[in-house]
Amino acid sequence: MAGNSFGQLFRITTCGESHGGAIGVIIDGCPPGLILSHDDIQHQLDRRKPGQSAITTPRSEADTIHILSGVFEGKTTGTPILLMAYNHDMRPEDYTALKNIYRPSHADYTYQAKYTLRDFRGSGRASARETLARVAAGAIAKKYLKEQLNIDILSYVEQVGNIRTEIPYQHVTLEAIEQTIIRCPDPDIAPHMIALIENVQQAGDSIGGIIKGVIRNAPIGLGEPVFDKLSADLAKAMLSINAVKGFDMGSGFEGVGMLGSEHNDAFSMKGGAIHLQSNHAGGTLGGISSGADIYFRVAFKPVSTIRLPQQSVTTDHHACTFKAEGRHDPCVLARAVPIVDAMTALVIMDHYLRFKAVKIT
Amino acid sequence: MAGNSFGQLFRITTCGESHGGAIGVIIDGCPPGLILSHDDIQHQLDRRKPGQSAITTPRSEADTIHILSGVFEGKTTGTPILLMAYNHDMRPEDYTALKNIYRPSHADYTYQAKYTLRDFRGSGRASARETLARVAAGAIAKKYLKEQLNIDILSYVEQVGNIRTEIPYQHVTLEAIEQTIIRCPDPDIAPHMIALIENVQQAGDSIGGIIKGVIRNAPIGLGEPVFDKLSADLAKAMLSINAVKGFDMGSGFEGVGMLGSEHNDAFSMKGGAIHLQSNHAGGTLGGISSGADIYFRVAFKPVSTIRLPQQSVTTDHHACTFKAEGRHDPCVLARAVPIVDAMTALVIMDHYLRFKAVKIT
Amino acid sequence: MAGNSFGQLFRITTCGESHGGAIGVIIDGCPPGLILSHDDIQHQLDRRKPGQSAITTPRSEADTIHILSGVFEGKTTGTPILLMAYNHDMRPEDYTALKNIYRPSHADYTYQAKYTLRDFRGSGRASARETLARVAAGAIAKKYLKEQLNIDILSYVEQVGNIRTEIPYQHVTLEAIEQTIIRCPDPDIAPHMIALIENVQQAGDSIGGIIKGVIRNAPIGLGEPVFDKLSADLAKAMLSINAVKGFDMGSGFEGVGMLGSEHNDAFSMKGGAIHLQSNHAGGTLGGISSGADIYFRVAFKPVSTIRLPQQSVTTDHHACTFKAEGRHDPCVLARAVPIVDAMTALVIMDHYLRFKAVKIT
Amino acid sequence: MAGNSFGQLFRITTCGESHGGAIGVIIDGCPPGLILSHDDIQHQLDRRKPGQSAITTPRSEADTIHILSGVFEGKTTGTPILLMAYNHDMRPEDYTALKNIYRPSHADYTYQAKYTLRDFRGSGRASARETLARVAAGAIAKKYLKEQLNIDILSYVEQVGNIRTEIPYQHVTLEAIEQTIIRCPDPDIAPHMIALIENVQQAGDSIGGIIKGVIRNAPIGLGEPVFDKLSADLAKAMLSINAVKGFDMGSGFEGVGMLGSEHNDAFSMKGGAIHLQSNHAGGTLGGISSGADIYFRVAFKPVSTIRLPQQSVTTDHHACTFKAEGRHDPCVLARAVPIVDAMTALVIMDHYLRFKAVKIT
Repeated sequence: MAGNSFGQLFRITTCGESHGGAIGVIIDGCPPGLILSHDDIQHQLDRRKPGQSAITTPRSEADTIHILSGVFEGKTTGTPILLMAYNHDMRPEDYTALKNIYRPSHADYTYQAKYTLRDFRGSGRASARETLARVAAGAIAKKYLKEQLNIDILSYVEQVGNIRTEIPYQHVTLEAIEQTIIRCPDPDIAPHMIALIENVQQAGDSIGGIIKGVIRNAPIGLGEPVFDKLSADLAKAMLSINAVKGFDMGSGFEGVGMLGSEHNDAFSMKGGAIHLQSNHAGGTLGGISSGADIYFRVAFKPVSTIRLPQQSVTTDHHACTFKAEGRHDPCVLARAVPIVDAMTALVIMDHYLRFKAVKIT
Repeated sequence: MAGNSFGQLFRITTCGESHGGAIGVIIDGCPPGLILSHDDIQHQLDRRKPGQSAITTPRSEADTIHILSGVFEGKTTGTPILLMAYNHDMRPEDYTALKNIYRPSHADYTYQAKYTLRDFRGSGRASARETLARVAAGAIAKKYLKEQLNIDILSYVEQVGNIRTEIPYQHVTLEAIEQTIIRCPDPDIAPHMIALIENVQQAGDSIGGIIKGVIRNAPIGLGEPVFDKLSADLAKAMLSINAVKGFDMGSGFEGVGMLGSEHNDAFSMKGGAIHLQSNHAGGTLGGISSGADIYFRVAFKPVSTIRLPQQSVTTDHHACTFKAEGRHDPCVLARAVPIVDAMTALVIMDHYLRFKAVKIT
Repeated sequence: MAGNSFGQLFRITTCGESHGGAIGVIIDGCPPGLILSHDDIQHQLDRRKPGQSAITTPRSEADTIHILSGVFEGKTTGTPILLMAYNHDMRPEDYTALKNIYRPSHADYTYQAKYTLRDFRGSGRASARETLARVAAGAIAKKYLKEQLNIDILSYVEQVGNIRTEIPYQHVTLEAIEQTIIRCPDPDIAPHMIALIENVQQAGDSIGGIIKGVIRNAPIGLGEPVFDKLSADLAKAMLSINAVKGFDMGSGFEGVGMLGSEHNDAFSMKGGAIHLQSNHAGGTLGGISSGADIYFRVAFKPVSTIRLPQQSVTTDHHACTFKAEGRHDPCVLARAVPIVDAMTALVIMDHYLRFKAVKIT
Repeated sequence: MAGNSFGQLFRITTCGESHGGAIGVIIDGCPPGLILSHDDIQHQLDRRKPGQSAITTPRSEADTIHILSGVFEGKTTGTPILLMAYNHDMRPEDYTALKNIYRPSHADYTYQAKYTLRDFRGSGRASARETLARVAAGAIAKKYLKEQLNIDILSYVEQVGNIRTEIPYQHVTLEAIEQTIIRCPDPDIAPHMIALIENVQQAGDSIGGIIKGVIRNAPIGLGEPVFDKLSADLAKAMLSINAVKGFDMGSGFEGVGMLGSEHNDAFSMKGGAIHLQSNHAGGTLGGISSGADIYFRVAFKPVSTIRLPQQSVTTDHHACTFKAEGRHDPCVLARAVPIVDAMTALVIMDHYLRFKAVKIT
């Protein structure tokens, strides 16, 4: 209710501030019997962690995950799983400068207004460090979906600033994504994206972009009619990620200019099975998965933290100039890929369990 | 859990199929003491009802709302409010043709797969007729927010096909919106939109568009950190509407090409109060309302039901051609405006009650 | 959240006041494909309705149920089911006397304090008439559980005042229960209970009692560890019924005087299967159904409405004497039997769907 | 949904097995600004911990609590609070004997059936050690309720076996409760209870009892009508505690033998305010707190773990004899007092926040 839980049947609750004791997550509702090791989770965290390449912030967190409950003799038991990563890079003295200022486009101002006090170290609870917990939980969902149902979940950087790859999502592989530090599977475009980010970084500025998410092999029937459409829950999941300002599915914003006769996805028979001849819908019909690939776009604004001086105000209401110290991510896209993966996996996993509950046996 | 409820503290549960006995909604959590009459609700329903203009479907439903509980002597009592509209235009014989076919881009196929049976009259539960219940419930939320908190909620058609108004959302009034049957407040552009729809209609085709939503005077502090960000809940609300394929907030998809130094919204002091010099964020910071206007876009695909012949398959797996009979909405945008209004009001109302619960007293 | 919903996956939301337009319930989450007719539901309502015997209130409500959604061609569709009973016996003039008084042991006083206004006709939302909605919804759950899983749910009056049957719950049948108007399966004791109620009725007074609930053939594994134990959810279900003041399961309050060596239920092998030699636990171990019969007791206080004069206060804070007019149930037990049945069925149905969601497939 | 969370607005989620890495709890929804120290929580845990007296199990857990998030500069921030107690007394070798046996009246059998595997060390997730998390979370609720609203929550042992104190709950103080190791405030009866427990302990057996819970100064208006009555949520809370088999409120099971005219609680005026002349209801009317003291009883069965030999079966379906090794609690009542306190505080806190949300401002 206070917004720190996600999912109904596969339900995660995250906790922790960027400079508190730890980032943690309880996963409640994981089916029993899933083989689960530390490495299964750590691998995804390593894709998200800072300092992994020249274009990410060098904050030196190992982000080591600990499994504290819910796993016994290498298998999930059906009881809640607690995952924790302790915070080590805590230098609170770095942050006293932030105590008395509202940084532009950060949550300082709204947290203070809502709660009357705030943890001003880093961004406290509003830090993107919280997404570590999501990636850890999502790794479990992703493993379950792959092993039990052969569902593939994949995300990649489609656009940085105005530089965009035109590679069709159908052809993208995880290997191609991981080949470049920007996680764009297009070897021709990726270098331009990286060059743009480096320029922006040198200028002390930041830049946004778009991640494309793809789900393959999802069974027909996921998603509930009316409010909990699969598309609606994916939208919520994505908009809950820091810096995300937009989501669209299938034809999305492009589709508004099409005619119905162009946009409609005709059914035909193919090899004895029903087949969709096109997929402008993006994988759902009436909010329920149709068996076609599910694909969507997620728009990220440029990172708020920049080294250039900005106008701002102090907490006691005086105008001031603010300039972020240290080095920061000039573009979050590459590190956000595993976060989009994780949120996607959490949505699909939850809807799979909901589907199982109602399914005729 | 089965997806027919929305909201946590101001919680609605809708029911009803397009050709069943009635469309209904229970609103649980409405504060007591709100003066509420039949007309308060009916007025919003009339904005949504079919047959209101030359560019909407002529299905002749009166859509009269009945208040069956929760209101006593003209005031809400704090107990659940049941609103119902009985279905009258039920001619099931019209629909037997639909029994054995999966219409392209409709939910027939996925409902059948998920539930093994479906109400094939109209679109059953998947019909946009269900949104009648949302508009009715949203009318209550909208009234409460206006009367108690002076919050204004406003939506309008910004784009039809590729025809778009450039009027800034700040200048839009309800009067201007209601002046044209397409609900676009731009008197120069609206006729072009209407002409486009008429052309599409004559061709037996359909067209999509974009609705812009605006919330004015929302207090600072609405929205919960992390998963239940105000932006995330608005995204879910909008993607839960039939035919919606995209959502963005503030700069949205446009913002990805901006630099952080351009995009960041500087704070300054103005008349003794903290003021945002720009509003690329669209009214939230860290997912919590900042006191600035909240604005967002909602992308609607072209309506699936068209009179042109389309390839499809029968339920017993034979290729066929499908051609919708009768007249249908060639463009849902004008009628979707009150639906976007309603979903917006439901999200804001729910978050307002959640805010009240946690607020220091 | 406002307390008018029950269940997680098989979720009901009730609405309606005793003298408003209707009593209604939406059932969300009913699996598709269940054959369901009006009579399936009406039959249980008839067991609850007023005026069915000499010892119940003669309020002449037909309590006819209407199915307004979620059922198509005689089967549930998986979409929400709306059931309604319109109120006919509305004579508001009878109730103006109640407007300015707080009746002893009724909810008038607390509703007024909580909501600052109340529907004073009958008991408004606090009326036991609301349980009509529960019985209707429970009838669906009961039918599903019987037909799909062969689960039997049975309740009967074990005690009225201090008169009590010693018949073991194992031997009780529905036929025996329905043989007496007090719904006590003991032909020797039932007449004494009835005589007691008649005496109390003549004196203008009321009396309480105990209902025993029994569930046979529940599969092993229902109930979630920790908070949502099957026993805990049954307790909540029962205490949510008007006039209920106590619940115990298995040995219950009697068991506190036993030694562990007496109370423990030994396992043994019987016909190749694991068998419990006794069942002091009442059918759960660690909150999860064990395959043994589930049985529990529900304590009802005497009805608050009596014809004898009582001290009370007016809403404007003057002492007064209150004396209920008309005839009322001197003892609710007989009519409460189908309510206990219904709440039991709702709990079991919900936990069965939850069990299905997590179960290894 | 998987049963490891409790509460709606003040929501706790617990995790951890008796012999896993840790017992933990996330509290989501705690209002900001509450002064909270380690000692505030540790104090309640010390009342629950093993080894505190001659009549409790000597398992030597320090049960030291760690606050890992949600508290900054000594105050709660409104973000989720993670509390953890690491397990140290882990000697898994002690438990291999339990791997292949279903202990009578334990959850071994039902967990195995439900999940197909189980953590057989201690009782895994079914261990009463999980209640440590509840006591920790409850300590925060209790502190908030006392400091902000002056609500007092108090529990004590009323009965052990058949030995019972007749002290009226109105006269009981925390000091009197803590004066005896059995936490019975009656100095004459407590020694008899302790003697009974010592006898039972020497015999290798166990014994049950009754705890009485009392809430003083609760404001009028807590509790939601219909399903989430305050009484219903208290019942669920109590039945969710290990070994609890019964709950009643006010007159409870005793009240069924009373006449309405005896049982009804008359209103009168006293010092200008409305006053209840008796309190058979136990502090609620229609499920909503009336301003009178709330009081209830909780029945605990004798502990399942006894040193006497018992018949049982192995996991591979052979009859066997089971005899628990080591020393165990012969009676959980004294240690259960802070658990009843905690669950009470959680229910009241949650309903207080719910009340705030709906309250007219």
